Amino acid sequence: MSARNYDPLDPDSLRALGAALDRLALGFADLPPVGAGGDGSLEGVLIEVAARLHDNYPYFHPLYAGQMLKPPHPVARLAYALAMWINPNNHALDGGRASSRMEKEAVGEMARMIGWESHLGHLCGGGTMANLEALWVSRELCPGAAVVASRQAHYTHQRIGAVLGMDFEPVPCDGRGRMDAGALERILRKRRVGTVVATIGTTATGSVDPLADLLELRERYGFRLHADAAYGGYFGLIEGLDPETRRGYDRLGEADSIVIDPHKHGLQPYGCGCVLFRDPEVGRFYQHDSPYTYFSSGDLHLGEISLECSRPGAAAVALWATQRLFPLVRGGAFARMLGRSRAAALALHQRLEADERFACPFPPELDIVVWAPRARRASESSERSRRIFAEAASRQLHLALAELPVELFDGSGVCGEWDRANLTCLRSVLMKPEHEEWIERIWTLLDQSAEAVMREPTPRA
Amino acid sequence: MSARNYDPLDPDSLRALGAALDRLALGFADLPPVGAGGDGSLEGVLIEVAARLHDNYPYFHPLYAGQMLKPPHPVARLAYALAMWINPNNHALDGGRASSRMEKEAVGEMARMIGWESHLGHLCGGGTMANLEALWVSRELCPGAAVVASRQAHYTHQRIGAVLGMDFEPVPCDGRGRMDAGALERILRKRRVGTVVATIGTTATGSVDPLADLLELRERYGFRLHADAAYGGYFGLIEGLDPETRRGYDRLGEADSIVIDPHKHGLQPYGCGCVLFRDPEVGRFYQHDSPYTYFSSGDLHLGEISLECSRPGAAAVALWATQRLFPLVRGGAFARMLGRSRAAALALHQRLEADERFACPFPPELDIVVWAPRARRASESSERSRRIFAEAASRQLHLALAELPVELFDGSGVCGEWDRANLTCLRSVLMKPEHEEWIERIWTLLDQSAEAVMREPTPRA
Repeated sequence: MSARNYDPLDPDSLRALGAALDRLALGFADLPPVGAGGDGSLEGVLIEVAARLHDNYPYFHPLYAGQMLKPPHPVARLAYALAMWINPNNHALDGGRASSRMEKEAVGEMARMIGWESHLGHLCGGGTMANLEALWVSRELCPGAAVVASRQAHYTHQRIGAVLGMDFEPVPCDGRGRMDAGALERILRKRRVGTVVATIGTTATGSVDPLADLLELRERYGFRLHADAAYGGYFGLIEGLDPETRRGYDRLGEADSIVIDPHKHGLQPYGCGCVLFRDPEVGRFYQHDSPYTYFSSGDLHLGEISLECSRPGAAAVALWATQRLFPLVRGGAFARMLGRSRAAALALHQRLEADERFACPFPPELDIVVWAPRARRASESSERSRRIFAEAASRQLHLALAELPVELFDGSGVCGEWDRANLTCLRSVLMKPEHEEWIERIWTLLDQSAEAVMREPTPRA
Repeated sequence: MSARNYDPLDPDSLRALGAALDRLALGFADLPPVGAGGDGSLEGVLIEVAARLHDNYPYFHPLYAGQMLKPPHPVARLAYALAMWINPNNHALDGGRASSRMEKEAVGEMARMIGWESHLGHLCGGGTMANLEALWVSRELCPGAAVVASRQAHYTHQRIGAVLGMDFEPVPCDGRGRMDAGALERILRKRRVGTVVATIGTTATGSVDPLADLLELRERYGFRLHADAAYGGYFGLIEGLDPETRRGYDRLGEADSIVIDPHKHGLQPYGCGCVLFRDPEVGRFYQHDSPYTYFSSGDLHLGEISLECSRPGAAAVALWATQRLFPLVRGGAFARMLGRSRAAALALHQRLEADERFACPFPPELDIVVWAPRARRASESSERSRRIFAEAASRQLHLALAELPVELFDGSGVCGEWDRANLTCLRSVLMKPEHEEWIERIWTLLDQSAEAVMREPTPRA
C-alpha cells in the first residue's frame, strides 16, 4: 500500500476540490485580472507542517477508539476548504450572503430534526459558546435563579454559570450516569431553580438524562429546560435505542433550548456548535446597533441573533454540504452510520461482559463504552487501566481513560475494596461507523494488552 | 483569461496541498489499511456549493474595498485544509499534540511582538470570545467595578459587559474617533472603574486610543487596561505611523491584557482570535477538573487556560504556517504588506481631500478611510453616500457605509445644516497590500460613481 492510496486521508478527493474551485472562479470571471501571485516557499512550509502533524494519534483510523474525536466527512472538509477561498463572514449578509443563507437552511434542518417548525438558532464556534448563549438567555428570563446540571454534565456548565454570575448546583446521578430525578426534585423543593440542564449524552459515558421525568418536574416546578445535546443530539435519528432512551428523544422538542455540536457527531471539522431556541422571541436579548455592518440588506443578519461577531461562513458551508449529502432523516444514510457506531459499542460491551477480567458499570446508552479491569482494590484496578491504556497504544490501539465516581461501579464487582473515591477506568468512544467492522480486531488488541498487564490471575472480588 | 488562471482564487496552489497530504500520509503509513472510501455524489454537492458561493462580493479582489474583510494568505488556507485531514482538537494534548505545540509557538511569537517574554495566552474562535475572557478576568480581579470603553469601541464590549454583569459606561471621543482622555478622567473621578478598554484600531475608522495618556491615568487612578487590538494589533510592526500613534504602539506591552484577531489583519481565515495576558498568574481563574481529558501528558493542555473547550487545532496550524513564512518582525515582508495597506489609505485620503465634492473628517490613522459627499444638509449627504455606494457597486467597486456621529465631521465643512445626529458616510477598509497599486483604478471608479450621483453641483457649505 503506498501512502498515496491510504484511504482515510483520501488525498484523491483534492480532484473534486479542484473542479469546484474552477466552478467558483467562473462566477467571478468578469472581474479585471490581478497580477500573478504564487510563492515557492509556501510549499516548503506546508511540507514542514505535514511533518509536524505526524505527532498526532491517528484520529481518522478505526484503531483510534479513544476520545471523542471523529473525522469530518470528506465533503465537509472539502466544502470548508472551498469556502476559505472566499472566506465569508457570517456576522452579516454584507460579509457572507451565500453562506448566511446556507446557515439558515442547515440550522433549520437541525431544528426540524427535533420537530421544530419555528425556532431561533445559529451556529457558534463550539459547544461552550452555544451553551453560554443558552444559559445567558435563561438568566435574562429568570434573573437570580440557580442553574443545575448533573454531576456527570460537562464541567463547562459550572464554569459558564460562574462566568454568567449564576448559582450552580450539581445534581447526583443514578447508577447509569444519568441525572437522578428524585435528587433533582429535592433541590427544586428547597431552592429557586431557573434552569435545569439535561445532558443528552454525557461526555464520559454517553448517558442520557431522563427527559420525560424532567419534563414532568418542569410542569410542577416551573423552570427552563436546556438540553445539552452537544454529543447526543443526532441519536434520535437511529433505530435500536433502549425504549427509555427513545422516550427521551421523542420529547426532545419540548426543551426550551438545545445545543448540538455538529463538530462532534455531525461529521464537521472543529469550530461548529449550534444553539437552538424553541421561542424565536428570545432574539430580543441579542439586540444591538452596529454602526458599520448590516447595510446591504434588510433581511436578518446572523450577527443580530448571536453573541459572536465575526465568525466563519465556511463552517456553515461545510455543514450545509454535508446535510445535502446526508439529510437528517430517520432511516437515512447518516442515521445508519450512527447506528453502526452504536452497534460497535454494544458488540464491545458484550465481549467485555463475557470476560472475567473486566467489569462494566452499565451497557452503553449511545456509543461510548466504559469498563475497568477487576482487581482487589480500586487503586489497583486504576493502575491496571493506565497500564492497559499504554499497552494498547503500543499495539496501535488507542483507547481513553476516564475518572468515574465509585458509585457508578456499585454492583459491578470490579473490586472488593474501595480505597479511593474515583476509579480510573478505560473508555472507548466508538464514533466511526467503521468501528463496527473493526471490533474483532480492536478486541484482539485489547485482549493482548490486558493479557500483558494482568498475567497474574486476580480472584473475583 | 481563463477562469482557471484567475490568480486571487489560485486553484494551482492545490498542487502544494496534494504534496503536503502525501507527506502527511507517510507519517501514518504503518497503520493497517482501511477499505476503499470515496463517494461520487460528493463532487456534485461541491459543484453546487461553488455555484451558490457566487452570491458573494469578491472579497479577494482589490476592487473589494469595503468592509473589514481580508483574504487569508494561501499558506493559511492550505495549512488549515491540511490540518482538517487530522482534525486535531486543541482542547487537550490528547486531541492535538502537534497543533497545541504550534499554538503555543505562534501565540508566543505574537506576545513577543508586543514585547512580552512571558505571558498567558491562547487562540479563540474570534474577537468576541477573546474580549469576553479578558473582561471576565478583569471582573474577577476587580469585582463590582465598571468597565468603560470609547463610544467608537466595538459594540461587543457593552454587550459582553452586560453578559458578565459588569456596569458599562461609554467614554466620549475626540474629533478623530479616539477616546477622549479628559472625558475618561472625569468618569474616573466620579466612579469606580475596574477596566478601561483601549481600542487599538476602531472598527469604523481605525482610530487608535491615546494609550500613553491612558497609561498615565492608570498610574493615578488604578485600573486594568485592556487593549482591544483585534483590528490594529499588528500595526506596531510598520514604519510611517504618525508620531502620536507610534508612541501608543511602543507602549502596548504595558497593557494588562490584549486581544488581537489574526483573522483580521493576520492573514488567517475566520475563526482565529487571540487573547494575551501580561501576568501568567491569571491562569488560576480558568482552573477546573476534567475527568475525561488531560490524560496523555503532564504538560499544559490549552483547555486548562481557556473558556472554550473543543476548538480547531487547524486554526493554530494555519497561524503557525503563516508566521513561519511571514515572521512578525519590523521591516519584514508581513510588515511591508501592512505598510502598503496604509499607503493605499493615505493615497485615497489625499485624493479625497483635494476633491471639492468630498469632505474627510480626519486622515486615516491606520488603513481605513471615511469620507462624505458635501451637501446642504446631513440627510442629503447621507443619501448621496448611499447612492454612491450603489453606483460604485454597479461598476464593480465595492465600498462600505458607516453611521458616524456628526461630531467627527466638525470643521470638515461637509454640510451647512445638521438635520440628523449621525451621518451615513462612505468607508473603505484597504486591507489588501494590492490596494496600493489599485488606488488609481479605485479612484477612477469612485469619481465616475460620484459624478453620476452629484451631477448637480452643490455649493460648499
